[in-house]
Amino acid sequence: MLQSKLFGKTRKDISQDEKSVNAELLTRAGFISKQMAGVYSYLPLGLKTYRKVEQIIREEMDEIGGQEVLLPTLQAKSLWDQTGRWEELEPIMYQFTDHHGTKIGLGATHEEVITDIVKQYVNSYKDLPIYLYQIQNKFRDEKRAKSGLLRGREFVMKDLYSFHDSEEDLNKYYKITHQAYLKVFKRLGLEAFSVEASGGAMSKHNSHEFMVKTEAGEDITILCNSCAWAQNKEIANVKAGDKCPDCGKKVEEAKTVEAGNIFHLGNTYSKGMDLKFTDKDGKQKEVIMGSYGIGLGRVMGTIVEASHDKDGIIWTKTTTPYQVHLLNLAKSDKRKKEANKFYMSLKEADIDVLHDDRDISFGKKLKDADLIGICLQIIISDKQEEIEFKIRADKTTSLISIKNVIDEVKKYYS
Amino acid sequence: MLQSKLFGKTRKDISQDEKSVNAELLTRAGFISKQMAGVYSYLPLGLKTYRKVEQIIREEMDEIGGQEVLLPTLQAKSLWDQTGRWEELEPIMYQFTDHHGTKIGLGATHEEVITDIVKQYVNSYKDLPIYLYQIQNKFRDEKRAKSGLLRGREFVMKDLYSFHDSEEDLNKYYKITHQAYLKVFKRLGLEAFSVEASGGAMSKHNSHEFMVKTEAGEDITILCNSCAWAQNKEIANVKAGDKCPDCGKKVEEAKTVEAGNIFHLGNTYSKGMDLKFTDKDGKQKEVIMGSYGIGLGRVMGTIVEASHDKDGIIWTKTTTPYQVHLLNLAKSDKRKKEANKFYMSLKEADIDVLHDDRDISFGKKLKDADLIGICLQIIISDKQEEIEFKIRADKTTSLISIKNVIDEVKKYYS
Repeated sequence: MLQSKLFGKTRKDISQDEKSVNAELLTRAGFISKQMAGVYSYLPLGLKTYRKVEQIIREEMDEIGGQEVLLPTLQAKSLWDQTGRWEELEPIMYQFTDHHGTKIGLGATHEEVITDIVKQYVNSYKDLPIYLYQIQNKFRDEKRAKSGLLRGREFVMKDLYSFHDSEEDLNKYYKITHQAYLKVFKRLGLEAFSVEASGGAMSKHNSHEFMVKTEAGEDITILCNSCAWAQNKEIANVKAGDKCPDCGKKVEEAKTVEAGNIFHLGNTYSKGMDLKFTDKDGKQKEVIMGSYGIGLGRVMGTIVEASHDKDGIIWTKTTTPYQVHLLNLAKSDKRKKEANKFYMSLKEADIDVLHDDRDISFGKKLKDADLIGICLQIIISDKQEEIEFKIRADKTTSLISIKNVIDEVKKYYS
Repeated sequence: MLQSKLFGKTRKDISQDEKSVNAELLTRAGFISKQMAGVYSYLPLGLKTYRKVEQIIREEMDEIGGQEVLLPTLQAKSLWDQTGRWEELEPIMYQFTDHHGTKIGLGATHEEVITDIVKQYVNSYKDLPIYLYQIQNKFRDEKRAKSGLLRGREFVMKDLYSFHDSEEDLNKYYKITHQAYLKVFKRLGLEAFSVEASGGAMSKHNSHEFMVKTEAGEDITILCNSCAWAQNKEIANVKAGDKCPDCGKKVEEAKTVEAGNIFHLGNTYSKGMDLKFTDKDGKQKEVIMGSYGIGLGRVMGTIVEASHDKDGIIWTKTTTPYQVHLLNLAKSDKRKKEANKFYMSLKEADIDVLHDDRDISFGKKLKDADLIGICLQIIISDKQEEIEFKIRADKTTSLISIKNVIDEVKKYYS
């Protein structure tokens, strides 16, 4: 992609009410644009990263047998009345009456819709288990929406729902999703600590949260950096500085953000919505359910919060919008031509490259590149024949002969 | 994919209020599930076809320089007040007040949002032209929503918006999108006739509609099957049976459905929202805009309306959810094993295959396959060594040696 053609220039001035690091950097770098509090548009750069996050999550959900569906945003009150959640969720749900007098809510979550669908297809134990997921907008009228992509009023989630003939079968699949979640975060380049949820409606052993360390975190997690043992501070039986119950090393008091969660739902929804099946012995039983969520925007926001410096974003290898940011700092025509030729050869080698071909100052190009945060910067100048191979994260630079660049790029990402 | 694992069994019984062929067939075949009038969920089979439609449209939009973005559903009234469309669109818009007293509308269309974003990035003629598109939900509270996927209350659209420094530049790009649209429909396997729109707010030369012949169509188009000349009946200067003005062959009176449209917007939105740029001569001018839409669900519904028989759907080669429906009708263990082995070899050859491995009657398998409508059926039975190679559209069958099947499948789709 030629940067001169890319929509979404970097900006110095952004709205004063953006208090969060992720929203500030993503807006200044041209990834997102705010429509109103908690509601953002994704610009081309932002959508590139978003699609990479989406694809990693999709692959891992497919890997554990998930079948993808797409559920609606408009949901009738009559559906929510079956579980009594129309009133319960009223404080955060967008609810209104349409032109025909039907009461409608925007999907704040999709347990009711998916249970209603599954009910139409399940009769016998032979129809179970079922694993369905979607990647779709959720709408929640949050009181405060000041954390950028970490807490939106409109945001995309991957939500997986599983349906089982027994608690045992759910437990088995719950463990599988637990492992899949750890794999998703690892592939995204995030170190996630899994903790038992600290209570609420679910009992503590029935729910896990996946926590990522960052100063912007609203939760506090006691965690061990050596063996990944972790507990939510509210229910932890050790404190910061104590020995890790698993490996004996010292544990830390860390601010964390919840990047995903998994729940045992049991028969909560199947009871309310009368989702039953006939078991092997001919008896009618309630279906046992689990649900598993990851917010895609929240993941993007978390990466930015966890990985940036004073100059801008530092994307992880799998979420960088482009693999290479090619900065043409040459003034001579000969060298400019070489840069264009080199851009084409990178593309031919299937390397995803953003080429800063703009007619602006060197300083602005370097600043923009650090702000945007693509993992590798490749700088072509009149100074020397070689190119500068710069790693955004630590800003280390090495001089490399042009003919070796493609191999070095592939090595970096392998 | 093993059909025994696929979520979404075929059904005989569906709600009596589904009057449209597309909704009836797609529901019975397990592609979609109705949530309420005009609001559907996509089940795994439906999402497979949906993704193919999406990918074709995305590729052609990228090809004409479109950059993909993702715009929000929640839109503040204050934005719509700038064009006066809050009141104008009230009859079809979902409008409500949130918990904070902000008046919000669900995106029925996105001209206001995109113009507001572009305004933040455009100063000079050097920033133009800009081509942005998205693939995203639209919400319209239609009075009647009885046409299945042809007219939904919640539906996915691809909408492209272009921004230019002159009418001439828009005209140039308008022609390019016109060609791209014809290419999209051709790739989808639909024969689309482009007609000038019959009026409304836009003058007739400033808007085109892409019409597909089907009995379910609400429009009537006078068209020539020989040279693809077409006019909307309301403004046509020839009638059915007359000679085609272009090629002289007889024209026809055909019911059609509008599968896409393209508009000259001129300065309508840039005027209302004060989107200006500085031209080469230093003068402030209004940006000239165009918009270009295709409904993805509508395309799927149109394909079903245009391509089905009494037994079910007949997908086009590029929209078939799977390339091959492998029907195992064998009873002998030896032959069953061969079928499983053959299924694996198809997958290894990168052929997307749905394998009906269910333990049900032959008749039911054949009926289901015709209903689902995958282009090719490959039938393995105990009758003979060869497999039956059946084309869903015309139900012609030939006997082929297993070793030749992969070549034949590839030939069919090439």
